[in-house]
Amino acid sequence: MINVGIAGYGYWGPNLARAVGEAGNARLVMVADRDENACARAAQRHPTVRTTRDIGAMIDDPAVDAVMIATPVSTHFPLALAALRAGKHVLVEKPMADRPDHAATLVDEAARRKLVLMVDHTFVYTGAVQKIAEIVETGQLGDIYYYDSTRVNLGLFQRDVNVIWDLAVHDFAIMDRIFVSQPVAISAGAAGFLDGSPENMAHLSVYYDDGAMAHLNVNWLAPVKIRQTLIGGSRLMVIYDDMQTSEKVKIYDRGAANGADPYERMVSYRLGEMRAPVISTKEALVTEMQEFMRCIETGTRPITDGESGLRVVELLAAGARSCAMRGRPVELALPKVA
Amino acid sequence: MINVGIAGYGYWGPNLARAVGEAGNARLVMVADRDENACARAAQRHPTVRTTRDIGAMIDDPAVDAVMIATPVSTHFPLALAALRAGKHVLVEKPMADRPDHAATLVDEAARRKLVLMVDHTFVYTGAVQKIAEIVETGQLGDIYYYDSTRVNLGLFQRDVNVIWDLAVHDFAIMDRIFVSQPVAISAGAAGFLDGSPENMAHLSVYYDDGAMAHLNVNWLAPVKIRQTLIGGSRLMVIYDDMQTSEKVKIYDRGAANGADPYERMVSYRLGEMRAPVISTKEALVTEMQEFMRCIETGTRPITDGESGLRVVELLAAGARSCAMRGRPVELALPKVA
Amino acid sequence: MINVGIAGYGYWGPNLARAVGEAGNARLVMVADRDENACARAAQRHPTVRTTRDIGAMIDDPAVDAVMIATPVSTHFPLALAALRAGKHVLVEKPMADRPDHAATLVDEAARRKLVLMVDHTFVYTGAVQKIAEIVETGQLGDIYYYDSTRVNLGLFQRDVNVIWDLAVHDFAIMDRIFVSQPVAISAGAAGFLDGSPENMAHLSVYYDDGAMAHLNVNWLAPVKIRQTLIGGSRLMVIYDDMQTSEKVKIYDRGAANGADPYERMVSYRLGEMRAPVISTKEALVTEMQEFMRCIETGTRPITDGESGLRVVELLAAGARSCAMRGRPVELALPKVA
Amino acid sequence: MINVGIAGYGYWGPNLARAVGEAGNARLVMVADRDENACARAAQRHPTVRTTRDIGAMIDDPAVDAVMIATPVSTHFPLALAALRAGKHVLVEKPMADRPDHAATLVDEAARRKLVLMVDHTFVYTGAVQKIAEIVETGQLGDIYYYDSTRVNLGLFQRDVNVIWDLAVHDFAIMDRIFVSQPVAISAGAAGFLDGSPENMAHLSVYYDDGAMAHLNVNWLAPVKIRQTLIGGSRLMVIYDDMQTSEKVKIYDRGAANGADPYERMVSYRLGEMRAPVISTKEALVTEMQEFMRCIETGTRPITDGESGLRVVELLAAGARSCAMRGRPVELALPKVA
Repeated sequence: MINVGIAGYGYWGPNLARAVGEAGNARLVMVADRDENACARAAQRHPTVRTTRDIGAMIDDPAVDAVMIATPVSTHFPLALAALRAGKHVLVEKPMADRPDHAATLVDEAARRKLVLMVDHTFVYTGAVQKIAEIVETGQLGDIYYYDSTRVNLGLFQRDVNVIWDLAVHDFAIMDRIFVSQPVAISAGAAGFLDGSPENMAHLSVYYDDGAMAHLNVNWLAPVKIRQTLIGGSRLMVIYDDMQTSEKVKIYDRGAANGADPYERMVSYRLGEMRAPVISTKEALVTEMQEFMRCIETGTRPITDGESGLRVVELLAAGARSCAMRGRPVELALPKVA
Repeated sequence: MINVGIAGYGYWGPNLARAVGEAGNARLVMVADRDENACARAAQRHPTVRTTRDIGAMIDDPAVDAVMIATPVSTHFPLALAALRAGKHVLVEKPMADRPDHAATLVDEAARRKLVLMVDHTFVYTGAVQKIAEIVETGQLGDIYYYDSTRVNLGLFQRDVNVIWDLAVHDFAIMDRIFVSQPVAISAGAAGFLDGSPENMAHLSVYYDDGAMAHLNVNWLAPVKIRQTLIGGSRLMVIYDDMQTSEKVKIYDRGAANGADPYERMVSYRLGEMRAPVISTKEALVTEMQEFMRCIETGTRPITDGESGLRVVELLAAGARSCAMRGRPVELALPKVA
Repeated sequence: MINVGIAGYGYWGPNLARAVGEAGNARLVMVADRDENACARAAQRHPTVRTTRDIGAMIDDPAVDAVMIATPVSTHFPLALAALRAGKHVLVEKPMADRPDHAATLVDEAARRKLVLMVDHTFVYTGAVQKIAEIVETGQLGDIYYYDSTRVNLGLFQRDVNVIWDLAVHDFAIMDRIFVSQPVAISAGAAGFLDGSPENMAHLSVYYDDGAMAHLNVNWLAPVKIRQTLIGGSRLMVIYDDMQTSEKVKIYDRGAANGADPYERMVSYRLGEMRAPVISTKEALVTEMQEFMRCIETGTRPITDGESGLRVVELLAAGARSCAMRGRPVELALPKVA
Repeated sequence: MINVGIAGYGYWGPNLARAVGEAGNARLVMVADRDENACARAAQRHPTVRTTRDIGAMIDDPAVDAVMIATPVSTHFPLALAALRAGKHVLVEKPMADRPDHAATLVDEAARRKLVLMVDHTFVYTGAVQKIAEIVETGQLGDIYYYDSTRVNLGLFQRDVNVIWDLAVHDFAIMDRIFVSQPVAISAGAAGFLDGSPENMAHLSVYYDDGAMAHLNVNWLAPVKIRQTLIGGSRLMVIYDDMQTSEKVKIYDRGAANGADPYERMVSYRLGEMRAPVISTKEALVTEMQEFMRCIETGTRPITDGESGLRVVELLAAGARSCAMRGRPVELALPKVA
């Protein structure tokens, strides 16, 4: 049984607290939040759990094996670092940190201490993304040609972070999960239409080393909510529509036809059947918790490990730099081969 | 009654020929195409019309008042120039020319000779775009914040022109119609996944002088056909979905709320009613023909005049240059104030 | 402050218990359920509330002002009757009773004792149905021509009640709310495809005294979930789609055209704009609770009063009789004019 | 080469004329229509074809091998009978006749003379219905439990025929194609809301000898166009949506689960994958023409033969009788076993 402490009991912390209880082999023992009211809410809902306003004390408490961090982004780095230094396994909210160097420091610290460092990229644990990853990994999709995502809605304007750090982070995490090839450059543009608010609309293009391309359309000021991703492969194509209650993933046996005659004016194409596979409806957050506990117990690496969190932060930071230059591409360093 | 000659009777020419007959005050008198079979088809469908394989002869024929050019893009410039020099009014297929300087030369020639020069930007004459333009011009939409278009499908791969010149041209023409502000820069990226084919996927971001942003997502390799544009304004928002058989234009009384408190973490927003106005179902091409004839008769300028065609070609050429630099922005010269 | 006791804490009782707390001027004081585990669950979630396995004792308890009955259908009648005789106001789950004479007895008893008798026809209190009722009552819709509902899905097979008593009850309640004219006959057919299960598919046609017609398509064995109602009026037409997350109600300015020429082969028609009004998103059950408390305090009648519950039970029973005769129509007695 | 004469060149005749030319082994030689203008239109479009205002003369003309009848319904019987008596093969518009006895007389006449008698139930020859029939015939669907169709729209009000004869005929033809079991009774209701017009809305329930049920919802006064059919089988379920441009047929591996425990309150169910097979996009009318010609050449029976047309007319007539009695069921005579 793994004893868990949660830092931050605002919007997301209560979800983590509930999911810890449903994971099976973990137990919530402490909740820390600087806000007295947050502590009171935690105490009411989890009467057997200790609460404290001193996050540092919780991190150092010997009764805590693993720390989950659901505080504002700017505090992820110092709190996660302190927890690792205290010998605790760490699950940190996305984005993992506000700067790539901070994220890299966390990765190094966890590696040196052989602790589990995991990022809460929840989408990666949904039945839909798991199914897409399976189609890619088994070779059914063929080479990924492109990933094209629209993630827009109305009404989640935030003041302390722009739309890229809020919404694009989801796609970067999914892309990190399913792409085999490496991103080499990013070009992005953004606009903000409300005084005193950060950018609320952005378009980001990511170039991969094998010629593939990804694009993200994120917007807080759209008339309707759209969560739709097209994925083009050399063998199949996929539409992932998260707004559908059923049939979230549709797989099309479509594409350009093999053996297209170069002398024809038009390339011919293939229009085969579509199928919507059965998707697991298990709650993603519970799957993720179980993955975290399994990694702690077996000493293995989670799917959304610290390196994954670091790569996502590098894309976010590079995307923000490109936006400031109206799309001028920012090159991404390829990972060194081990 | 205006006598019309058509150059090029391949894919689009027959549509022009039919629409001339439905315009009311025009008459098709000649069709010219280098291909014998095309001439034969024209003769069969329009028994009273003369056909010739010599386009130049048709352009010079005194029986012809106006020439419509539906030949390959690379021939638009020489044919349109010859027609203007022969004193003929000209309607030219989109894109108007393959280079901005060619387009500019045509504009100058038409102005000097006081001839009508019009570009066949058909979408501008659809009931849907006319309705959107009306909402903008009457101030109902408020300031345009963004134009965000997805124009993807499977199976129209072409060998002689890439997806930007084939599909983005439609959006550039619509944007030219509805935006009041001026585009100042473009950043674009493209990819091609089939050997021996031009780029089949592109993303283009256009920046305007008042902070507005437009984005185009064009793709020949998508599993389904999507023709959807979101337009965000300061007062209303619009979804234009050309795949719907009814309710192509939906107008949302939604947006960020006025008087948002800067001390609140979230900007509040407004969720009012949606309405789908009645859209004219008159065929766009017939509307366009009538506009062409009206301009010839009254000496006025068409909505999609040569200047408009030139601006669209400038965007296409600048977008292509940016693609070659992976999104590095290309600045657009603002028009001189008269 | 009105003190409430709830009889039955199975599937629906917990929702009533929560909603009582959110109504504002009511307080849950007792929960009675014959099942010990149900009592334990209630005690855990509502620590200050008394629980008992003796429903009769709760009904007679002087601390209870109003009783809500969420037990199996066959027990609605004896429990509601006992509660009324004990001088308590009563809210009873739908359907109000299993036989029309039972329902009528309850109506009489409540009237004699001047107690509030209300049926939990929750749909009537949704923002969508309230908006539709408003459109009808203000005359915007004109005369109701028809009400045509499809309410199908997979997987809610029940063993003790057939699909009519389970699903058609919702539409009968909505129809009772919005129709001005009176139903005079019902013709229905049903089928069951699983051994040992009651009918899982039914079609019911209701005829009104002014020529209007209603039809209900209810089915537990459909591949997808559909909740769609078309309402045709002489001035407007409505589509109510409860599966939409937004735009649940669409109002069409469409219909047959006035002044249609009787000598034309085709009647002409009118195709005006569609609009989706703003719908209240307040939880229907809370609205309903507030209506119940308001009626108790002011001595007025609830919208879904006992008479309404009786009329719905009469339709259900008549529909079941017609099914047994493969659609032979069953006449409905018109209410006596007061 | 089969020589074809067409009687009636109004709304549908021109489509038949075109399709004859595309069938491959047939040739249109005559067109007869009492209206001079119709003859003129036929002559213009088919310059080599003879036209006449004397339908009888065409029927008797020795140059004609087969007659296609696209005249008003009330004339189908006398014209088809005359053509059969003249020794001609006959394709007749749907419905085949206005009375069952008329239809039966035609069947007898064709049988005695060994001529092909075919009804133009075009939907049966669509790729979608062919695919559904294939799924049924190969046993993939299992037993058909129900067929539930919605066929509504605005604006096709007719004066000489009600909505049942206009729209329900399509579903009856499809049902005749795919059901193995026999219809034994029909219960129907209808309403008309416009003075001087026939019924514009109807609901029809058909009962089969194995317990299956079909239902048709037909309406000329609906705000939107819906063409959707749910088909429930013991192994699979199907949604056929003719308004979709792609994915018209979706096949769901869903249903009630085998081995459901009779002691459970709820029957369990199965939620497997959905697939949308490739549907032939060949024009149904051309497929139908080729079937007609093939039957003439080989002396075989068409899928939509006279018996099929007769069965459809019997359902139409019985449905109309039930409507007049507000749903009282009308029994259908089972065909005698050969």
